[in-house]
Amino acid sequence: MAEVLPHPERSEIQIESVLQALADPVRLRFVRELAKLGCDGAPCGSIDLPVTKSTRTHHLRILRESGVISVRPEGTSRISTLRRDDLDALYPGLLDSILAAKR
Amino acid sequence: MAEVLPHPERSEIQIESVLQALADPVRLRFVRELAKLGCDGAPCGSIDLPVTKSTRTHHLRILRESGVISVRPEGTSRISTLRRDDLDALYPGLLDSILAAKR
Repeated sequence: MAEVLPHPERSEIQIESVLQALADPVRLRFVRELAKLGCDGAPCGSIDLPVTKSTRTHHLRILRESGVISVRPEGTSRISTLRRDDLDALYPGLLDSILAAKR
Repeated sequence: MAEVLPHPERSEIQIESVLQALADPVRLRFVRELAKLGCDGAPCGSIDLPVTKSTRTHHLRILRESGVISVRPEGTSRISTLRRDDLDALYPGLLDSILAAKR
C-alpha cells in the first residue's frame, strides 16, 4: 500500500506557518520552481536544490505540514505540488506577491 | 543626542527576512495593531502584547531590522511605524493579504 503523508486541511492552514515555511531561501527557491512547473507537480528530485538529501526532506516536510505543498507517492517517487488553490483562497494575493518578489 | 536605531534601506530589504519577521504570532499581532493605527506610528508601549518587556524589545528589533517597521525616539519613548510604503512598493499585495488573513 502506498504511503500516505499527512497534510493539513485547508481549514487547518495558518498564516504564521505558511510565512514561516516560505521565509527560508531554500524552501522559497523550491516553491518558485514548483510554481513555474504549473499544477501537475514535480518529482521531488527533479528540482535542484543546493542541499543534502536529508536537508531536502526536512524542507519538504515543513512545506507540506504548513499546507504550502502537497506530496503524493507515485511509484518509487514522490510528486510535489504547490497548493495554489488553497493558498489563493485563504490569502488572496499572498503567493503571487511572494513569487514576484525580486529579492 | 537622540539615539538613532539602524534600519535597512528599502533596497536592502529582503523577502525572506520580511516573511520571517511576520511569521511569529506576537510580531504579527503587533503589526496588525500598528496597521490599524495608521501611518503616524505608535509609542512602543501603547500596543499591548502578552510578553515581557525584554521579549517585546527582541520582537521589535526583528521587525525593525527586517524592514517591516521603523522606530524613532521621541522624548523618552520610542515610536513604531509600519513601513507600508516600502513594503507595498517592494511586494505589492503582500502586506494587505497578510493583514486580511483570518487565521
